[in-house]
Amino acid sequence: MSFAPVYFDWNATTPLEPLVRDAMLPWLGASETVRFGNASSRHDYGRQARAAIDEARARVATAVGAHPTEVIFTSGGSEANNLFVKGAAACLKPGMLAFSAIEHPCVREPAYQLRRTGWTLKEIAVDAQGVIDGEDWQQTLLARPTLVSVMLANNETGVVQDIARLAAEARASGAWFHTDAVQALGKLELDFRALGVSAMTLSAHKIGGPLGAGALVLDKRVELAPLIAGGGQERGLRSGTENVAAIVGFGVACERAVARRESESQRLAQLRAELEDQLLAQGAVVFARAAERLPNTVFFAFDNIDGETLVAKLDRAGFACASGSACSSAQPEPSHTLLAMGVDPLLARGAVRVSLGRDSTAQELSRFVGVLARVVDDLNKLASIAV
Amino acid sequence: MSFAPVYFDWNATTPLEPLVRDAMLPWLGASETVRFGNASSRHDYGRQARAAIDEARARVATAVGAHPTEVIFTSGGSEANNLFVKGAAACLKPGMLAFSAIEHPCVREPAYQLRRTGWTLKEIAVDAQGVIDGEDWQQTLLARPTLVSVMLANNETGVVQDIARLAAEARASGAWFHTDAVQALGKLELDFRALGVSAMTLSAHKIGGPLGAGALVLDKRVELAPLIAGGGQERGLRSGTENVAAIVGFGVACERAVARRESESQRLAQLRAELEDQLLAQGAVVFARAAERLPNTVFFAFDNIDGETLVAKLDRAGFACASGSACSSAQPEPSHTLLAMGVDPLLARGAVRVSLGRDSTAQELSRFVGVLARVVDDLNKLASIAV
Ligand SMILES: Cc1ncc(COP(=O)(O)O)c(C=O)c1O
Ligand SMILES: Cc1ncc(COP(=O)(O)O)c(C=O)c1O
Repeated sequence: MSFAPVYFDWNATTPLEPLVRDAMLPWLGASETVRFGNASSRHDYGRQARAAIDEARARVATAVGAHPTEVIFTSGGSEANNLFVKGAAACLKPGMLAFSAIEHPCVREPAYQLRRTGWTLKEIAVDAQGVIDGEDWQQTLLARPTLVSVMLANNETGVVQDIARLAAEARASGAWFHTDAVQALGKLELDFRALGVSAMTLSAHKIGGPLGAGALVLDKRVELAPLIAGGGQERGLRSGTENVAAIVGFGVACERAVARRESESQRLAQLRAELEDQLLAQGAVVFARAAERLPNTVFFAFDNIDGETLVAKLDRAGFACASGSACSSAQPEPSHTLLAMGVDPLLARGAVRVSLGRDSTAQELSRFVGVLARVVDDLNKLASIAV
Repeated sequence: MSFAPVYFDWNATTPLEPLVRDAMLPWLGASETVRFGNASSRHDYGRQARAAIDEARARVATAVGAHPTEVIFTSGGSEANNLFVKGAAACLKPGMLAFSAIEHPCVREPAYQLRRTGWTLKEIAVDAQGVIDGEDWQQTLLARPTLVSVMLANNETGVVQDIARLAAEARASGAWFHTDAVQALGKLELDFRALGVSAMTLSAHKIGGPLGAGALVLDKRVELAPLIAGGGQERGLRSGTENVAAIVGFGVACERAVARRESESQRLAQLRAELEDQLLAQGAVVFARAAERLPNTVFFAFDNIDGETLVAKLDRAGFACASGSACSSAQPEPSHTLLAMGVDPLLARGAVRVSLGRDSTAQELSRFVGVLARVVDDLNKLASIAV
């Protein structure tokens, strides 16, 4: 598939992968076999829905090295993050929740909500490359948090944290450790057991799966109060009639994403390296360039050029990119992640993200580089006239 | 469309309506126009997703006589009920939450969770017909609850409450009044303004729409803390990348359900009347028969016949019905609703629900009545041998 305009915003969401769609269509009555049913129903329709969910649960579990009973399906990544933060806190005596300064808003905001219930918060600092700061991490452990949340890969910079080590240290000091792996799934190897985390968040629509499905993968020793209580679905941890089509799609998407991960990652890393060379040659700053990053993500800025404006011009020129974080770009503040890294707010305002995916090609990128040079040039000329 | 086995469980979930599916398919990449995008993204893909959501929001609002800005999309009815109960409580000083004894678990369970935070609960009694008990209602108001939740139509019995009156009285005594209208939408006339409620829950998959979408329709004077906090979608009241396909489908489903409501309701009421006559002739008890009820729902039992067993036999004979409440039938306890009505637990264990929908026909019902008589006869014979 290729899209017009060219889609360079795969970290925001992804088009459904054809095989995923094919698996979903029966559940939308759009294929020869029509399937539908409430998975709690005790008749044939219900049992088929239940079987499809079970199969998807096994697929998701296999993709991330977990046991099927550890997978709690949710409506997406935001719900899974909220479920962990609020659900775990509700079962503990108020204590300290530590989370990195670069977490997605759907970890930070529920954390802020917890303050009302007596919890104290600790934001763990990151260094100039966006990596958890070693000293602040030690300080954090000394403060004995009961809950810790550090994302595996950042949605804006793509920076990857050493979660296995952080989780081991946090667990050793008595905390439950959660990681938001939404951006890591399908791009990095992901093994729940090897990471040693207590909980891990996934989202289907970032990996060629549908909107409407995500999961919290959960070590069963962690007690959790449901965010959505009711009919008792998902072992009582997430009520509501199961979204069978989305869950089925999520299962297939996981399988596919894992199957192509190695070759795709190599291919994308190659494309990204070439793109970065070009960006640097054009005078851009590439954020977190020295850190280990996702293979598909480049976050960059040009001095004195506003990111919003650049994205709008690129959009008109046929390229769909993101400025700051797509998920919070309803509020056009400079990227929280960049500010946490100590980037000058003025430069941070220039931030543009290009995130590649399975349909991205070298041809698209070379066209992009040309268009970018022209657009940046135009904006610079406008700026010098304005001065 | 007709289904094999015959589907008599439309209160549990419904097959997607073809026009709804057609509206969704572009968003699943399964039509000539391929659409996808994160509605927060500032490029063409994002803007198209945003426009589609806006259009759906207007459709849902129109269907229920609300303003589009009053519609908060959620992942379904359970989430919307939890959002109201916990979200409103979080913004108030702990007080009393009153809810009817026949609420769906996704109102009752979050209510029970509130007790931990200092709230007191009052279950409002219903009479033998499943209607809010007048005296207990007055007692409830005297106790000055700050939040009241009474469902518009019960999912099991179909009993309809006089919500306009209850809401007016509760509002006059200073409470916010919420109604779960999940089973009412598409079956009864529904007008947010005329009902005078503070909040109302809807769900798409009960009306020919997809799983994965629901709404809380909310009077903006009610302050609400988000259940899912994060990127700030849905005016900050429900974060998470919007499920565009499901929301689009929900919009069309609302429009369709309202358009056919009057004729469909008449047709189904006719079918149901005939079915009830037959059931009574066969010696069944029809629950809440004297109450105003949804036109499509019959809840009945035969003395000394177990509901689970009857449903299993009917399933094998080609008819998909529900025993007790489909949503909570993971726990095979006698129906909470029937117990609240004072029905003998032994009789309640016999409860079977037939709920009809747009594809149900008189032919299906007359076949059903014949099969039912035979199955009940067989079970009675077995029982008499066992004795
Ligand atoms: C790192 C990260 N976490 C969580 C989310 C939220 O996931 P969802 O959109 O499925 O709610 C996103 C993207 O929106 C993300 O990039
Ligand atoms: C009355 C009622 N309220 C709420 C719900 C929950 O809705 P959903 O399945 O969309 O979560 C249901 C059905 O499951 C219901 O019948």
